[in-house]
Amino acid sequence: MINWNNLDTLKSYEEMKNAKKVNLAQVMTGENGAKRVREYSVPMAAGLTYNYAAKEVDDALLATFEELAKEAQLTEKFEALYNGEVINTGEKRLVLHHLTRGQLGDAVNADGVDKRAFYVEQQNKITEFANKVHNGEITNAAGEKFTTVVQIGIGGSDLGPRAMYLALENWAKKNNTFKMEAKFISNVDPDDAAAVLNSIDVAHSIFVLVSKSGTTLETLTNESFVKDALKNAGLDASKHMIAVTSETSPLAKSDDYLAAFFMDDYIGGRFSSTSAVGGAVLSLAFGPEVFAQFLDGAAKQDALAKNTKLTENPSMLDAIIGVYERNVLGYPSTAVLPYSQALSRFPAHLQQLDMESNGKSVNRDGGEINYVTGPVIFGEPGTNGQHSFYQLLHQGTDVTPLQFIGYKNSQMGTDVVIQGSTSQQKLCANVAAQIVAFACGKADDDRNKNFEGGRPSSIIIGEQVTPASLGALLAHFENKVMFQGFLWNVNSFDQEGVQLGKVLAKKVLAHETDGALKEFSDLLNI
Amino acid sequence: MINWNNLDTLKSYEEMKNAKKVNLAQVMTGENGAKRVREYSVPMAAGLTYNYAAKEVDDALLATFEELAKEAQLTEKFEALYNGEVINTGEKRLVLHHLTRGQLGDAVNADGVDKRAFYVEQQNKITEFANKVHNGEITNAAGEKFTTVVQIGIGGSDLGPRAMYLALENWAKKNNTFKMEAKFISNVDPDDAAAVLNSIDVAHSIFVLVSKSGTTLETLTNESFVKDALKNAGLDASKHMIAVTSETSPLAKSDDYLAAFFMDDYIGGRFSSTSAVGGAVLSLAFGPEVFAQFLDGAAKQDALAKNTKLTENPSMLDAIIGVYERNVLGYPSTAVLPYSQALSRFPAHLQQLDMESNGKSVNRDGGEINYVTGPVIFGEPGTNGQHSFYQLLHQGTDVTPLQFIGYKNSQMGTDVVIQGSTSQQKLCANVAAQIVAFACGKADDDRNKNFEGGRPSSIIIGEQVTPASLGALLAHFENKVMFQGFLWNVNSFDQEGVQLGKVLAKKVLAHETDGALKEFSDLLNI
Repeated sequence: MINWNNLDTLKSYEEMKNAKKVNLAQVMTGENGAKRVREYSVPMAAGLTYNYAAKEVDDALLATFEELAKEAQLTEKFEALYNGEVINTGEKRLVLHHLTRGQLGDAVNADGVDKRAFYVEQQNKITEFANKVHNGEITNAAGEKFTTVVQIGIGGSDLGPRAMYLALENWAKKNNTFKMEAKFISNVDPDDAAAVLNSIDVAHSIFVLVSKSGTTLETLTNESFVKDALKNAGLDASKHMIAVTSETSPLAKSDDYLAAFFMDDYIGGRFSSTSAVGGAVLSLAFGPEVFAQFLDGAAKQDALAKNTKLTENPSMLDAIIGVYERNVLGYPSTAVLPYSQALSRFPAHLQQLDMESNGKSVNRDGGEINYVTGPVIFGEPGTNGQHSFYQLLHQGTDVTPLQFIGYKNSQMGTDVVIQGSTSQQKLCANVAAQIVAFACGKADDDRNKNFEGGRPSSIIIGEQVTPASLGALLAHFENKVMFQGFLWNVNSFDQEGVQLGKVLAKKVLAHETDGALKEFSDLLNI
Repeated sequence: MINWNNLDTLKSYEEMKNAKKVNLAQVMTGENGAKRVREYSVPMAAGLTYNYAAKEVDDALLATFEELAKEAQLTEKFEALYNGEVINTGEKRLVLHHLTRGQLGDAVNADGVDKRAFYVEQQNKITEFANKVHNGEITNAAGEKFTTVVQIGIGGSDLGPRAMYLALENWAKKNNTFKMEAKFISNVDPDDAAAVLNSIDVAHSIFVLVSKSGTTLETLTNESFVKDALKNAGLDASKHMIAVTSETSPLAKSDDYLAAFFMDDYIGGRFSSTSAVGGAVLSLAFGPEVFAQFLDGAAKQDALAKNTKLTENPSMLDAIIGVYERNVLGYPSTAVLPYSQALSRFPAHLQQLDMESNGKSVNRDGGEINYVTGPVIFGEPGTNGQHSFYQLLHQGTDVTPLQFIGYKNSQMGTDVVIQGSTSQQKLCANVAAQIVAFACGKADDDRNKNFEGGRPSSIIIGEQVTPASLGALLAHFENKVMFQGFLWNVNSFDQEGVQLGKVLAKKVLAHETDGALKEFSDLLNI
């Protein structure tokens, strides 16, 4: 029996609030700090490790966190989710993105089929299609191979796949699995599509139209944009486009596409990178085998999220630490700081994943909540960020918890020794240094040069950004966000907050406005 | 006589705190809302308009803001700055970035020269150099024209110039002023330089090394990386590189560069886009005439910042509204949301500009302050963001003030009509709709579909992203940040908060660590 209770009704939450706070600068100093680094460390999948030594926690707090995990029934709720209960209460839908990469529990039947089999079938169809494109069985009208794949999608159909593509592009080139360059068109700003189209050879490009409903205005508009360009080049658009959509969408059976691959209503856009939404573009760009490794990394990380012992479940632990920071310590935002250029757009994807999932003000039953939920998420790669916004992170008046990500090895292996160290060593030295600088600070009589410390961070450390470790990283954050949604008792899988803007934009375009909206429309020449 | 007092010692700040709050949803509804849109509007330079109708202000509050501007002596402080007083108290330096684009007040003499003349001279030298590159007087060793320019720099030597390049790339292509493609290498992650070098033809590339001190570790490391690549291609590196640095730096007189152009200690990195730091790469990419238009837009906007009447001084008004939101209303972060794909990296630049300038915990004299200073700044272009983090902005538990930016026209002019409107119209309709959706909300009995409204935003509206309007936009935010620094009584022009990390990273590389730092270094294989 699962109880869906608000966070502030839980006894262990009260205990957590009343527990003794940790003086981070103090506990991270000297041998005790070294001990924490050794002990506050959890293995993740694909060679990753989650280290939370520099978080404001200690054994006593971790014990209350474990109590909270139990009282909030996080494991049971996760189990209900992957076994096919209606966890998306707002839209009354199952939540099945885990099934796109593995089977965590019982067979889930919906729409008259086994859903794991359905997702596998779709990926098999993509594999077959991608192989035919790569080996020249599927070509353009002139019989020439396609060289570029262009994803047309927005939000979850753009940010995740784009971040994953950028993360693996150089790895694939280095490892000889790079098949085709990928580009992305998302914004309804006509300059977005125009610039991408100007940068490619349309005659050798294959376009992936991604829209679950088949009705996303931005995406359909950009499809028309692309079709015009293909037509102007004397090409048959239907020989250059595939669709990723739901079986019930208007795109599913259309002759306008070379092929259609399916997702369904149980895969939220921001959780869709491991479905056909990411599968088509990434399989075309890097080969289906690479995408399979990515799925495997995610599946292995998902399996860890089933662990009932909190300190062996990195996503659950990360989730509770985040709730403690947000609801007890009162920190309003979180920065994601990957020390890897490959992950340059990973923070933008997490921004959607986290803020769209848990930026909610009512509970999963539409009832009141009396505490804050999802924080603002932002970030840029290090060391770049160090020369940008880290000033505020170190010496600003608010504390911002930090999520570092670092890898021992670069992807391309080309490096240079300057002042006795490689660039990769400098990169790693910087992330290590930052953790300690934020945690411990450094006293200085010149208050302008004084660092108070006490600024918490965790770090995920890996060998290299590979398909498998990227899958594990992605799944970790998806599961963290899910557990936080359980803790806050919100529905992390709908997004009603985006609707009002859509409705009003339609009114503007129909010239059915008055008051301020009419004035703004006039100012913008609509 | 200027008094540098902390914000909370000002009488008008107390008045502002005690003033009646505005019910935004209420005042923005009906004819009153329309009236606000018409009246709460200030012209900026280059055809831009700052509209603050959807901010939580009214005439009474604006009157207290005007009092605050006077009591805080914002105009006098700006005057002192552009007339050459030591405003950067920490580093004991003048603050002269305005002089790179115009002369606002008295001649400023420093280092034995007239500084306006110095900056103009540098830009003239860049103009001459760029023209020679464009007309083939300066070529590679084989006598072939350079086709690509690569900026090597980090932080202020990267984010601003990169954002400006991306903002004008398609405009320049459309308007036949596009001269050379620009690329940027910044991160010490070796994959950054390696990927850029793999994507260009080094034999036809000219590299711009940008480091004020000539000692920035990331930049010197990447220079070596590039020199290796040139050498491996059998090329003479000194015939492919120019430097932008200070006259006193080790790079200034080196034979390693084709030419050197100078900035100085009075131009902070994050304020350097209008100096040689932006001038070299942007003049090479788009032609010096385009860069001149950009400077002109910035200069015209700077002139407006001298206006003593608050409602005719958009940067000062924006600054005080921001302080009101941060210190009185308690909002912790601000989102920058340009409805223009061209401005895709403009928020990342503002993130540095704002957070590095005002993320401070001591006042300009090193004394205590007892109020919050700079907020977290983040953002992505619309409409993309609507499908990402807007859920939290609309329905999250915290209020995030929003800075919209929108343009009537696209840059490239290619468009498509779908459902009776162009993409550009859809883009504009969306930004208009969002302002009203955030301000007014919409009641719904289903609490999950309820929008409380009361979420404040302002919008800057322009005709098009052009060199001049981009310069004006940039200068607006630079001046806003400056005025906010004056209000908070912090030094917005140093960045001591970045030092500790640098020191500790050096220790890691020298293996002079113990405790937690040694453990983290071991985990990262350093």
